[in-house]
Amino acid sequence: MSELDNTLQLIRLGIDTQKEHVVFMHKDCNVCKSEGFEALSRVLVTVNNKSLIASLNIINNGILDDGEASLSESAWISLNAKEDDIISFAHVQPVSSMKSVRSKMYRQPLENKDFKNIISDIVKGQYSNIEIAAFITACAGDNLNVDEIIGLTKAMVASGQRLSWNNKIIVDKHCVGGLPGNRTTPIVVSIVAAAGFTIPKTSSRAITSPAGTADTLETMTMVNLNAKQIKEVVAKENGCFVWGGSVNLSPADDVLIRIERALDVDSEGQMIASVLSKKVAAGSTHVVIDIPIGKTAKVRTEEDAEKLKYYFTVVGKAIGIKVKVLFTDGSQPVGRGIGPSLEAMDVLSVLRNEKNAPQDLKERALLIAASIIELADKSKKGNGILKATEILSSGKAYKKFMAICKAQGGFKEPKFSQHKREVLSKKSGTVIEIDNRRLAKIAKLAGAPHDLTAGVLLFTPLKTKVKKGDVLFNIYSETSGELNYALDYLKSEANIILIK
Amino acid sequence: MSELDNTLQLIRLGIDTQKEHVVFMHKDCNVCKSEGFEALSRVLVTVNNKSLIASLNIINNGILDDGEASLSESAWISLNAKEDDIISFAHVQPVSSMKSVRSKMYRQPLENKDFKNIISDIVKGQYSNIEIAAFITACAGDNLNVDEIIGLTKAMVASGQRLSWNNKIIVDKHCVGGLPGNRTTPIVVSIVAAAGFTIPKTSSRAITSPAGTADTLETMTMVNLNAKQIKEVVAKENGCFVWGGSVNLSPADDVLIRIERALDVDSEGQMIASVLSKKVAAGSTHVVIDIPIGKTAKVRTEEDAEKLKYYFTVVGKAIGIKVKVLFTDGSQPVGRGIGPSLEAMDVLSVLRNEKNAPQDLKERALLIAASIIELADKSKKGNGILKATEILSSGKAYKKFMAICKAQGGFKEPKFSQHKREVLSKKSGTVIEIDNRRLAKIAKLAGAPHDLTAGVLLFTPLKTKVKKGDVLFNIYSETSGELNYALDYLKSEANIILIK
Repeated sequence: MSELDNTLQLIRLGIDTQKEHVVFMHKDCNVCKSEGFEALSRVLVTVNNKSLIASLNIINNGILDDGEASLSESAWISLNAKEDDIISFAHVQPVSSMKSVRSKMYRQPLENKDFKNIISDIVKGQYSNIEIAAFITACAGDNLNVDEIIGLTKAMVASGQRLSWNNKIIVDKHCVGGLPGNRTTPIVVSIVAAAGFTIPKTSSRAITSPAGTADTLETMTMVNLNAKQIKEVVAKENGCFVWGGSVNLSPADDVLIRIERALDVDSEGQMIASVLSKKVAAGSTHVVIDIPIGKTAKVRTEEDAEKLKYYFTVVGKAIGIKVKVLFTDGSQPVGRGIGPSLEAMDVLSVLRNEKNAPQDLKERALLIAASIIELADKSKKGNGILKATEILSSGKAYKKFMAICKAQGGFKEPKFSQHKREVLSKKSGTVIEIDNRRLAKIAKLAGAPHDLTAGVLLFTPLKTKVKKGDVLFNIYSETSGELNYALDYLKSEANIILIK
Repeated sequence: MSELDNTLQLIRLGIDTQKEHVVFMHKDCNVCKSEGFEALSRVLVTVNNKSLIASLNIINNGILDDGEASLSESAWISLNAKEDDIISFAHVQPVSSMKSVRSKMYRQPLENKDFKNIISDIVKGQYSNIEIAAFITACAGDNLNVDEIIGLTKAMVASGQRLSWNNKIIVDKHCVGGLPGNRTTPIVVSIVAAAGFTIPKTSSRAITSPAGTADTLETMTMVNLNAKQIKEVVAKENGCFVWGGSVNLSPADDVLIRIERALDVDSEGQMIASVLSKKVAAGSTHVVIDIPIGKTAKVRTEEDAEKLKYYFTVVGKAIGIKVKVLFTDGSQPVGRGIGPSLEAMDVLSVLRNEKNAPQDLKERALLIAASIIELADKSKKGNGILKATEILSSGKAYKKFMAICKAQGGFKEPKFSQHKREVLSKKSGTVIEIDNRRLAKIAKLAGAPHDLTAGVLLFTPLKTKVKKGDVLFNIYSETSGELNYALDYLKSEANIILIK
């Protein structure tokens, strides 16, 4: 290799740095020396005529020699690289759309085209994590005005796939800040589709919780449908409930959300753009937004909820979506199950009109379904709840649910796991507080969501009177090891269910 | 290893992620599974009873097996880790001072104690790079008021070592945004110390340029002095010129500056806090700030310079420092040399009153020295320039320079490198433009600053009349390979020196 040669040979180290592309080089390699690259430099790398921008990490050790380089898994896959491929390097100018991010730091309003360039560069992987953090921070607080939120929303729509439909009215729903167990989606979709409305619903998987809606549905049917399959299901049954990740509706959102979570920043403007861009991309025209308000929910006061309502409505209008916002009770978990299968059982219990079905889940689902019906069909004004209740209690909703499952690849009954442990009350009294966070942690230690049947089944919501020795909750797990791990944690923690 | 065991065995992979601590684990390891850690999680790691917070990168491959973990070099060194040490893991709550960063995103003013907590956590390595990026962004633009800049400055002082002196007046200088070759420091320190003032000067090394002041001085004397040695030199000679990095005066600054550079953000508030905090920490009482103004300099307009002047003066006053701001010409490089040794030769040429010494460097140094003398001694008002000129031209400044070098460990003459190539003009005319950035790149490709004698020696400043075949500049290099590399780049680039 000549001293002027700007190439190295690739070996795969298998380092997962998530969405951020990283390239690894030895400190003594000719490229580092001659190009003056140092750790954290942004570098243009090319493999087999495909290029991307990556951050440089330097290796001081023997895992690479000085003629070798490696790529993070995301970059390896993006470049379709193979062992021993030749990789070449060049300096890059800073991404030009970062100029707009810097303008935003100086509180200058951005235009639609600025957001379009930023989001497009982010989706192409041209932003480092710290650049994304700067963008998120510059847009946080009340730094985005309504026009900017609209610009950001449109940019996020433009960056991904978009579904189109023949019907004029396409309905949808969204819940801001999920309460544990709040799985209204399968019930709402079934009622609304049975009522004759088109509702092509996409949902997410769990990120930090013991179950997402897509995880819960996966215990009963297939959720990884592509755009073509979604169209077929909806053409046949008016509705679907699928995983949004497989249709790539808002790829920018996947990138932004990881950094927002790491910063623990939940910017209003970006949240509204994220939610509404996915709705536009899904082709929705009428959307009901559920905002649970409660001291442990995402939205804590009615004042905050009113502000969100204003933004959702105004931005929705600007991008051609009719939005209705509901305020609901966010003071405690919904239903009994925490974990995919256990939550699915709650859903089925409501759909099957079982006597002991969780009333809170049923009532929330009916309220949302009624609102959608009234929003989409003015003639139903005031009668939405009657219509929704009739469809649910007559069994039409359950029939529709089963029909959608069949169209999505078949229905299967969610199962309990093999290992179970009852957790008993150590005293008599009334349940006055439940620590949702720690209860969710027990479900996760037991294996949820990666083990679909694992989790927690809670028998004692707030205000339940219990006697010493009563079962407070069950822990379910697929292995005895994970069960023990959850029990060990339980032993170390006091008053997850507070009884007085 | 029990399933509940939260430990892994360390192996060293040697990955340099700069200041950010990173821990590497295999995706199938028991800790990831049981703790629910995912890539980019922030994790508390403990080795031999020492702990720090690190970001998690997941390895999918064979460089770690599932009982092993590794640390980035910064974390390895901080924890004093050894191969096969046992490392344990725990979840961490988000750093509590990030709450203040989030408040700042919402434009709430921060108090002194908020800045103290943030800077203290950053110095302890508890912030991830994206959290630092959020802090920098939240403070950028005009988001910090004067009180906040004062709070930030005090916090940065509190985070590091602080020098104290018996004298009442301690003088210092700083240049905002270095022009290539602008090495006034050794000359100014020599004049001012010879005039009887105390000037314990610390300087930085090159970050992206071909030479920093500390690199230049290192070609002539020792610059890695600790606080005790600095005191001894200054007690004897009134002044010193040492590398600031070895006395740890503002450790927060080292961390912040890397992220600012990566974001290409140069926030006024943080720049002022950075500069003045180092001055307070060095014990300075009277400081002259040189602001070169020019279209390729850091400060581009007089208006921007006036704003900086206001902040420097007001914040300086609040923290007990008397500041005088000078506006100087920033339109072209200073002196002839680019690279540590070559710049040192310019400095010596001025100090030795050589006939062909670079006049621009001499005049700038005299102006700054005169300003310091007048600022520190009111009786000299209007006579500073006479005093400074007398000290320089009489040889007293050179004598002082040699004495300080001796006190710092001895003087050595800077050398030319072994390999030299003359670059000739291809036509006759007048030099009307010099591309400083590309000229600096040639110096870096030739080996500067890591090879102290490498660099560029420019014979033709702006307005020089040249004939075809005249030498425009020399390239110096320690190896023929590096010389060729610089020449290859030169061949590929047109009009680095534009002649018309």
